Amino acid sequence: MKNHQYEDTICAISTPMSQGAIAIIRLSGKESLSIADKIFSTRSTNRQARKVYFGQLLDGQDILDDVLFTYYQSPHSFTGEDMVEISTHGSLYIQERLIALLIAKGCRLALPGEFTQRAFLNGKIDLSQAEAIADLIASQSKSSHQLAMNNLRGQVSKKIADLREKLLHFSALMELELDFSEEDVEFADRKQFAELLNEIEKELTTLLQSFQMGNAIKKGISVAIVGKPNVGKSTLLNALLKEDRAIVSDISGPTRDTIEDTIQLNGFLFRFVDTAGIRKNADTIEKMGIERSFDALNKAMAVLWVADQWSQTSLLEQYQELFAHVDMTNKKKFLLLNKIDTHANQNTDFTFLDFTTLPISAKNNININRLEEHLANYAQSCYSIHEVMISNLRHYHAFEKALHALQQAKEGFENGFSNDLIAVDIRQTLHFLAEVVGQVSNEDILSEIFSNFCIGK
Amino acid sequence: MKNHQYEDTICAISTPMSQGAIAIIRLSGKESLSIADKIFSTRSTNRQARKVYFGQLLDGQDILDDVLFTYYQSPHSFTGEDMVEISTHGSLYIQERLIALLIAKGCRLALPGEFTQRAFLNGKIDLSQAEAIADLIASQSKSSHQLAMNNLRGQVSKKIADLREKLLHFSALMELELDFSEEDVEFADRKQFAELLNEIEKELTTLLQSFQMGNAIKKGISVAIVGKPNVGKSTLLNALLKEDRAIVSDISGPTRDTIEDTIQLNGFLFRFVDTAGIRKNADTIEKMGIERSFDALNKAMAVLWVADQWSQTSLLEQYQELFAHVDMTNKKKFLLLNKIDTHANQNTDFTFLDFTTLPISAKNNININRLEEHLANYAQSCYSIHEVMISNLRHYHAFEKALHALQQAKEGFENGFSNDLIAVDIRQTLHFLAEVVGQVSNEDILSEIFSNFCIGK
Repeated sequence: MKNHQYEDTICAISTPMSQGAIAIIRLSGKESLSIADKIFSTRSTNRQARKVYFGQLLDGQDILDDVLFTYYQSPHSFTGEDMVEISTHGSLYIQERLIALLIAKGCRLALPGEFTQRAFLNGKIDLSQAEAIADLIASQSKSSHQLAMNNLRGQVSKKIADLREKLLHFSALMELELDFSEEDVEFADRKQFAELLNEIEKELTTLLQSFQMGNAIKKGISVAIVGKPNVGKSTLLNALLKEDRAIVSDISGPTRDTIEDTIQLNGFLFRFVDTAGIRKNADTIEKMGIERSFDALNKAMAVLWVADQWSQTSLLEQYQELFAHVDMTNKKKFLLLNKIDTHANQNTDFTFLDFTTLPISAKNNININRLEEHLANYAQSCYSIHEVMISNLRHYHAFEKALHALQQAKEGFENGFSNDLIAVDIRQTLHFLAEVVGQVSNEDILSEIFSNFCIGK
Repeated sequence: MKNHQYEDTICAISTPMSQGAIAIIRLSGKESLSIADKIFSTRSTNRQARKVYFGQLLDGQDILDDVLFTYYQSPHSFTGEDMVEISTHGSLYIQERLIALLIAKGCRLALPGEFTQRAFLNGKIDLSQAEAIADLIASQSKSSHQLAMNNLRGQVSKKIADLREKLLHFSALMELELDFSEEDVEFADRKQFAELLNEIEKELTTLLQSFQMGNAIKKGISVAIVGKPNVGKSTLLNALLKEDRAIVSDISGPTRDTIEDTIQLNGFLFRFVDTAGIRKNADTIEKMGIERSFDALNKAMAVLWVADQWSQTSLLEQYQELFAHVDMTNKKKFLLLNKIDTHANQNTDFTFLDFTTLPISAKNNININRLEEHLANYAQSCYSIHEVMISNLRHYHAFEKALHALQQAKEGFENGFSNDLIAVDIRQTLHFLAEVVGQVSNEDILSEIFSNFCIGK
C-alpha cells in the first residue's frame, strides 16, 4: 500500500517537549541521511545502518551539541522509510535549534502521528495497529497496557483476517453456485451455509459486546456512588482515594455536583463518580446536580448504593427514589450498609434484590478493602470472558455496520433470495471489516485518526 | 581516577518524565548487559556494541513493549562503564514498569546526575566539564548555550592547564634554586619570575572579572527599570515583553513590588526588573517595595531610568532621589525620555552625566527597537571582551582563592622571602586551580554538584 504522496522528509522531537537528560529528534523520508549528514561532524560515505555514531552537530561554525547518530535503512525502520535518529542533550534550546536547522536543510516539521501514518501507508502496520500505538502510549494501567499491546501485536487484525476468510469461503461457494445457476445445481450445503452465517454473526456480536469493557479499560471502569443525602458518599470516595478530595461535611447535601476521580485496583483503572445526594425536595441548583447524578448512574458499569438505614421498608423507599428511572440491568450492583460501627446491633446479613450487600464504615475504613476486592474481581471477570476485545469507537462502528450487512445477508438467505443479492451484502460485510484494519480508508478518516497522536510519533 | 566504590549497576529514565512518543531508559555499570539481556527477547551470546537491536521487553510471560536496545562497551560509553540504552514507547506506565523490572533484576535507581558523576570518576570528563553538561541542559539562550558548550569542550579546563603549566615552570625553577641554595646560585632570572607572576595574576583577575557576565549569561542580564511613580515603567516592561504582564494604570504607584520577566535579544537572555516607583512620601507597604527597588537597582548590570520630565532641574532632582544611595559605577545607564509623543516640542538632544539618552514612547512603541538594539550591543560588548568566561560560583570561589594564594607568593617574592616559603603559596595556588577541574575534590562537594542534575543524566 505504498503511497507516493509522501515524498518529503519529515522531522520532529520524539521525546516529551521539556528539559531532560536526553532528547531524541527523528527524521523520516528519502533525504533523511543526506540532510542529517550535512550537520553531523563525523563524515562517512558508507554509513552503516543501525550503528550508533558519536559526533558533533554543526550549525556552520557553531558546535550545537555532542550527539549520538543512528541511521535506519528502508525498509528496516519504524516508518519503513530511511530514518535518522539523533540523541542530543535534553536542553529545549538545543532541541529547538536542531529542528530549525533540519528545516533549513530541507526537512518539513512532522504533523502529529505522521511517523506512524507513514508506517501504515508503507504497510509496516495496519490501521488498527497504528491506533494501538496511540493507545499504548496513553496507557495508564496494566489492563489498558495489555489491551493496547494485544492490538499492536495484531489481535484484532488476526480476528478480522479470520472472519474475512470464513466470509470469503462462503461467498466463493455462493458465487460458484451463481455460475451454475442456470442448471440449478447446489454445490454448497445449505445447512453449512446457515451455520457459518450464524457463527460469524455470533462472533461479531461478541466483539461488539466487548466494546463496553474495552472502552472502560481505556478510560476507566465507571462506578457511580449514589444514595440519599448525608449517608457518607463523599466519605466513601475519600476512603477509596485515600485522600481528602471531596468536601465532607455533616450538613446535608454538600456535593452540589458530581465529583470524579480514578484509582487503580489490581491493574484496572476505575473512575468513581461521587453523585450529588438524590432527594425529593431540592432547590434548583441541587436539582441540576441530581439530574447529573441520574445521568452518571445511567452510564455507570457498577453502582455503589450507600445507605445508612436498612430496614426493608427504608431500603424499598430509597430504591424507589434512586433507581426508579434507571435501567439497572447489566450493571454490577453493591448495597453498602454504611456507618456499621454505629449500628452495632443491626442485622446486615440479608440480601436485597440482586445487590451484593456489604457492611462498611467509610469513615473508619471498615471493609473498604473487601469492597476493593469485589470491584477488582468484577473487572477481572468482565475482562476474562473476552478473548479479543475492541476498545476503539471507530472499530465499534465498523463492526456494527459489518454485523448489520451480515444480518441482511442472513435474512436474504433465510428468505431464499438469489445468490447475487446475498453476495452484495457479504461484500458489504467484508468492506466494513476491511475498514477496521485500513485496507479501505479515506484521507479524512486517516487524518482524523493521526491528528490525535502526539508529535514525533 | 578510577573509583571502586561504584560497583553497582544503575538505571534511570533519561527523557523527561512525561508521556511522549519515545522514552529512553539507561543502565550503567558492570551488570548492564547481563541485566538488560534478562528481559530482552532477542537473545545473543555475542551482542555487538553500538548496534541497535529491535525486540520485545519481557516481564515473565508478558510482553511489556517493542523496543530498541543498544549496548555500549566500556570504556566507549558516556560513563566509561558498560551501558545499555533501551528506547521504549513513551507511555509513563511502560517507563515505570520497566524501571521496576530492572530494579527487580538487580539494578539500583540512579541518583540525580549519577551517570555524569561516573563519567567524571572514570576520567571521561573533568569536573568543570561535568558542570558544563548541567549548564548545557539548562541553557535557554544562544549565549548561555555557547558558554556551556565551550566549557564542555574544555575551555576552562584548557585555561587551567595553561595556568598550571606556567606555575609549574615557575616552581620548578624555584626548586632548582632551592637545591643549590647553599651555593647562592640564581638559575632563574628574577625579572622573568616577576613578569610570570604578574601575568598569572592578571589572567586570574580577568577570569574573576568574567564571572559577572558569565553568571548573567546563565541567569539573564539583570536590567532595572527605575523612575518616579507613574512615568511609565510598567508600560515599558510590557512594551519590551510585548504582552500585558504588569498592571498598567494611570493611578500612581500600582506596582507595589518588583516584577521580573525575561526576554531574549540577539541570543542573550535579559532579566528585566520593573521596580516600584520611588518617591519620598510613601506608606509602609510602598516603602517596602521601594526598598526592594533599591536592592534590585544595586544588583542590576544595566539601568533603564524612565523620566517624563526632563528639564535639567527636574532631572537633577530625580537623579538625587533615585540614585543618591546607589553605586552606579560599572553599570550600563540609559535615560529614557518617555511619552515623547506628548512632548512634541521638547528638546531631547542632550546628555545627562554618563547616561545614554533615548527619547521613547513605551505606550506607542516608539524607539523600543532602538533600546533593544542598545541592550543587545551592550551584552555583545561585555561578552566579546572575555576570551574565557567563568559562570559557575564554585569556580569563582576557587579562582578567588587561587588568586589570593598567588598574591601571597608575589608578596613574598617581592619582599625577598626564601624560596621554600614562596613554594608553599605556589602549591596552594595549584591546589585551588586543581579544585575547579576536580583533580582534588571531596565527597561532599561532589554530591552537592551532582545532586543539582536532573535524574537520568
